[in-house]
Amino acid sequence: MRATQFFISTTKEAPSEAELVSHKLMLRAGLIKRLGSGLYTWMPLGLRVLRRVEAIVREEMNRAGAIELLMPAVQPAELWEETGRWAVFGPQMLKIKDRHQRDFCFGPTHEEVITDVARREIKSYRQLPVNFYQIQMKFRDEIRPRFGVMRAREFLMKDAYSFHASHDSLVATYQTMYDAYTRVFSRLGLTFRAVAADTGAIGGSGSHEFHVLAESGEDLIAYCPDSDYAANVELAEALAPATPRGAPAETMREVDTPKQTTCEDVAALLGIPLQRTVKLIAVMAGDKMVVALLRGDHHLNEVKLGKLDGMADFRLANEAEIRAAFDCPPGFLGPVGIDRGKITVIADRTVAAMSDFVCGANKPKLHLTGVNFGRDLQEPDRVADIRNVVAGDPSPDGKGSLALCRGIEVGHVFQLGSKYSQAMNATYLDEAGKAQVMEMGCYGIGVSRIVAAAIEQNHDDRGIIWPATMAPFLLVIVAIGYGKSEAVQKAADSLYADLTAAGFDVLLDDRDERPGVMFADAELIGIPHRITVGERGLKDGVVEYQPRRAEAGQSGDAQKLALAEAKEFLTGLLER
Amino acid sequence: MRATQFFISTTKEAPSEAELVSHKLMLRAGLIKRLGSGLYTWMPLGLRVLRRVEAIVREEMNRAGAIELLMPAVQPAELWEETGRWAVFGPQMLKIKDRHQRDFCFGPTHEEVITDVARREIKSYRQLPVNFYQIQMKFRDEIRPRFGVMRAREFLMKDAYSFHASHDSLVATYQTMYDAYTRVFSRLGLTFRAVAADTGAIGGSGSHEFHVLAESGEDLIAYCPDSDYAANVELAEALAPATPRGAPAETMREVDTPKQTTCEDVAALLGIPLQRTVKLIAVMAGDKMVVALLRGDHHLNEVKLGKLDGMADFRLANEAEIRAAFDCPPGFLGPVGIDRGKITVIADRTVAAMSDFVCGANKPKLHLTGVNFGRDLQEPDRVADIRNVVAGDPSPDGKGSLALCRGIEVGHVFQLGSKYSQAMNATYLDEAGKAQVMEMGCYGIGVSRIVAAAIEQNHDDRGIIWPATMAPFLLVIVAIGYGKSEAVQKAADSLYADLTAAGFDVLLDDRDERPGVMFADAELIGIPHRITVGERGLKDGVVEYQPRRAEAGQSGDAQKLALAEAKEFLTGLLER
Repeated sequence: MRATQFFISTTKEAPSEAELVSHKLMLRAGLIKRLGSGLYTWMPLGLRVLRRVEAIVREEMNRAGAIELLMPAVQPAELWEETGRWAVFGPQMLKIKDRHQRDFCFGPTHEEVITDVARREIKSYRQLPVNFYQIQMKFRDEIRPRFGVMRAREFLMKDAYSFHASHDSLVATYQTMYDAYTRVFSRLGLTFRAVAADTGAIGGSGSHEFHVLAESGEDLIAYCPDSDYAANVELAEALAPATPRGAPAETMREVDTPKQTTCEDVAALLGIPLQRTVKLIAVMAGDKMVVALLRGDHHLNEVKLGKLDGMADFRLANEAEIRAAFDCPPGFLGPVGIDRGKITVIADRTVAAMSDFVCGANKPKLHLTGVNFGRDLQEPDRVADIRNVVAGDPSPDGKGSLALCRGIEVGHVFQLGSKYSQAMNATYLDEAGKAQVMEMGCYGIGVSRIVAAAIEQNHDDRGIIWPATMAPFLLVIVAIGYGKSEAVQKAADSLYADLTAAGFDVLLDDRDERPGVMFADAELIGIPHRITVGERGLKDGVVEYQPRRAEAGQSGDAQKLALAEAKEFLTGLLER
Repeated sequence: MRATQFFISTTKEAPSEAELVSHKLMLRAGLIKRLGSGLYTWMPLGLRVLRRVEAIVREEMNRAGAIELLMPAVQPAELWEETGRWAVFGPQMLKIKDRHQRDFCFGPTHEEVITDVARREIKSYRQLPVNFYQIQMKFRDEIRPRFGVMRAREFLMKDAYSFHASHDSLVATYQTMYDAYTRVFSRLGLTFRAVAADTGAIGGSGSHEFHVLAESGEDLIAYCPDSDYAANVELAEALAPATPRGAPAETMREVDTPKQTTCEDVAALLGIPLQRTVKLIAVMAGDKMVVALLRGDHHLNEVKLGKLDGMADFRLANEAEIRAAFDCPPGFLGPVGIDRGKITVIADRTVAAMSDFVCGANKPKLHLTGVNFGRDLQEPDRVADIRNVVAGDPSPDGKGSLALCRGIEVGHVFQLGSKYSQAMNATYLDEAGKAQVMEMGCYGIGVSRIVAAAIEQNHDDRGIIWPATMAPFLLVIVAIGYGKSEAVQKAADSLYADLTAAGFDVLLDDRDERPGVMFADAELIGIPHRITVGERGLKDGVVEYQPRRAEAGQSGDAQKLALAEAKEFLTGLLER
C-alpha cells in the first residue's frame, strides 16, 4: 500500500479523554475515532489490525473443528424470556422496541439464539457433538464506557457454542477449544495466561479465562513462573504451611497497646514481624457469630469463606453485634477467652500452624503475646483456606512459588452444562430414541479488546510495537524525497514491488513529508520493520534497516544494507 | 470440507412462509434459518456463499482505490439531527434509547457518521479525493419484511462514501465505482444491468442502480439488447417517432360509441388498431386545467409530466372539475372544440406525430375519427415526452429497440453533491486557504440481497445452480458407501486430498446416506460440479462426473472418467 493512496492520520497530542496507554496510542496513531460514548469507528489502519486478529481467530476455530455461522445482532425478547434472562440481565442489555412495539435487544451474547437454532436443527445423537461460532459485533451498555476499545459498548467478539450428548464429550471439546485459544494467543505474539476462573455464580462446572499480562490489567492473577499454573487471586488455593506448628516457647502475657488498633501498629510497637500477628474478623452466618482468624499480613477471601458449609450467606458483623459478643471495642478483639459456645472460630490454614502469636486481648488498649492454641485457647472449630494468596506462597501444583501479576481478560472458555438447553428444552434423541437434554459449552474471545491489550503489553514512549502477526503492515519503506528524487523513487518502487509480489504487506511512505515526520509516524504506528531509502545513502548504494523492537541479544540500531541485497535480507527477515 | 464435519441440514418441504423461489430454496437448502420477522441466521452453508460475495466486493473496492474502515452500527441521534433526517427518516429507522435515555439508532445507512469522520479528519485539499467503504450489518425496520434475505430487516451492506474538492473529481470517482460495480456483478456470474435512476427527490445529480435481471424483480426496466442502455421505465426517454406527421387523408366525422368509453373498446368497435386512438387525461396544475394527450396504448408517466415547467405539483382532475370544464361525461372526452384559453393541451411526442386519429368527441356516446392537428384543432400548446416507454420503442442511444424486463436492485451509485457536507459543515481548505464544502458520492451494494437475487436468476426445479464464484463449494465428491467400502473411501479420500491441496473448495460427502439423498442434497445446494465415487464404477476404474448446469452447446449428462485421470480433468475444469 502506498501511503498517498491510504489514509494515515496521526496526531502528536494525546486526547485528554484517554487514560490508558493503549487508548491514547490508538487515537494518536489514528487506529480508531470516537463517535460517541463507547462507540468507535475503526479507521483504515486500525481495521487492518482488527482483521489480522480476526483472521487468526477464524483459522484456529476452523482448525479446532468449529463451524462458522452468523446470527442476527437484533434478538427477540421471547427467547430471553425462556431462560429468564430478559428480566435479570440488567441495564447492560440494550433493549429496543421495533415499529410494532415488540421487544428486542442488541445482542450482548448469543446463548439463547444458538440454543434456539440447535433445538430446531439437531434431532439425533448422530448430529452431536457440534460446535458453532461467529465473529460479530455485540453491544453491552456499560454504565461508564472507557479505555477506548478496551471497554467499548459496541465491540467485536468471537463467540462459540458447543452441543453435546455427554459430559465427556463436552470436556473433550472444552479441551480442544482451550488448546485452540492457546494457539490463537501464541500466534498473536502475546504473553498470556490461561487462568482457572470461579464458576460459582453462573453454575457451570469448568471455566478458564485467558488473560494478556499487562500492568494496567483490571484482574489480579496468581501464577507460577515455573509451571503453567495460573488462577484469579480469588480462586488460587493457599496451601497449608509445609512445616507443622511449633511447640509453645513463650508465656502468654498482656502488653499495653494504647493506640495500636491494627496488626501493623502492634507489630511496629513490639518490634516484631507482621507475620507473627493474628487478626480477627467477625462475621454473621445467619444469627450466629463466626470469627475468622488470619495472619496479620493476609487478606480474607470472601469467596473461599462463603464456600464453607453454612457460610453461603455470611456478612460482616456490625458494630452493635461485635459489642454484644465481645464487650470490647474493635481494634483489640482476639480469640482468647471468648464464649466458644456462642462464637465459632475458623482459622486460616496459616494461622492454625502458628505458635507464640500476637493478637487482641479482648480488653481495651491491650494485646496478648505468646498465644498458643491448645494451651491459651481451644483449637479452632474449623481450619480452612480462607485467605488470598500472596507472592511467595507455594504454588498449588507443587512446582514452585506463586507470583502475582495483572491481566486483561481477552478470552473465556466455559462448561455451561445444561443451564440453557434445559430452560429452552433443547433435546436430542439418544440411541434408544429417548429425548435427552444437550450439554453445552461456550467460548468467547474479545477480538477488538485484543488490539488494545496487545498495545498495553507492547509499546514504548514512541508508540506501539506490534507483534508481527498483528501489524497493519509488516514493513514500511520510508522514501525520503520520493517526489523529488528519481533515484529514491526508482529504488523505493522497485523494493516495494518486489516485496509486495513476494506476498508481504508493505507500506511505501511516498508522502511529501519531512523525514522526521515519517519516522515518527512509523514508530507511533508501530510497524515492525523499517527501511529508509534516501538520496545520500543511494549514492553509496545503501539503504538503512531498523527494527521497531530491539530483539533479545540484538541491537535495535539502524544498520546499512547494500540496496542490491536488501530484498533478499528483508525476505529472509519477514518470513521468520 | 467433509460433510460429516460440516453442518448440512436440508428439507424436502418448502416452508409455507416463503413466497419467492430464492426464499424457499435458501430455507430448504439450509442456507438461512429464521429467528424472527426479517431476522435470519446465516447457517454455515449460507455464510460460505455470503463470504464469497463479500470477498469479491472487497477485492473490487480495494482495486478501485476505496479504503476500508468500519463504523459503529449504533449511531447517536445528534448527527442525524444536523441533517434533519432524525425527524424525516421515518419508522424504517430503528430508534434506541440507551441506559441514560439518550437517543440512538441502529444505522440504516451511514452518511451522517462518515461525514462526521470526514469533517474531523480532512483539513486540506491535499487529502482529497478519498473514498471510504465498509461492509457491515444494517437495520431497516421494514413494515412488512418478506422474501427472506431479499427484504430482511437486518442485512449485510457494502456502503462507500467519497469526498471531493470538485465536481469533476466526484464524476471521475463515480465512473471508477461504476466500473468496479460492473466488475463485481460480472465476476459473480450474474446477468445484470446498470440502470439510469431518477435522482429527483433526493437532490443528487447523477445516479445508477444495478439490477440483477429476474422475473420476480420488483422493478421494471427498459433496456436495449443491442447496447448497454438501461433505465427504470419511469426514467427511460421515449423518443419522438422517426417519421414526421402525415398529411390529413380523412375527413373528421362523428361515430356512435354508445357504450365504448375506452380506447380499447372504440378500436374494437371500429376495427382499427389501438395505435390509431388518442386518449385524454385531465389534470390540475394549481387551479389551471391541463390535458395530456397519449396514444391509446401508451401510459402516462407522472414523473416526466411533473418535471415540465409549472407541472411540479400536478394532480389528476376530479370528476367535478372535469364536468365543469367539458360538460361531457368521462369516457368521451377529446381535445377538439375545448376552450384553449382555459385548458392547456400537452401532447405526447407520439401523439404530436399522428394524423387521422380517433378520439373522444366531447359529446356523450360519440367519438371522432379522422382527426388532425392544425385542421380540426389547434396544434398542442406543448409537445413533450410524457409517457412510459414500451417494448419496441427506439432506444434513446439510437442503437436499437428497447425491451422490458424485471430487475432486483442490488447496487446503487449516487452523486450526492453537497447535501450532507453542507448540512454538517464538512469543509476543507483549498489551495488559497479558503474553506470550501466537500462534494460527496455514495455507493451501496446489498451483499446479502445478492445471494437471494442470484438464486432468483439461477435455479431449476431441483434447486439452486450457483455461479462458480458464489458457490459454497465448487465440487462435491459423492462417496457412495464411504463407511462400508474400503475402495470407495480410498478413492474418495485421495481425490479429495489432491483437489483440496490444489486449492479448490471441495465438499466430500462422506455421510452414511442413501445415494438418492446425497444427489438430491448436492442439487438442492447447487454445487456446480459433482463426482460420484461408487464401488460398481471403481471395479472398472471409473468415477462419474456431472455438472449442475448444462453448459451451452454441451450436454449436462453424466460422463464416466477414468479414476486415474479424474484429478487432471477436474483441475482443468475448476480452474476455468
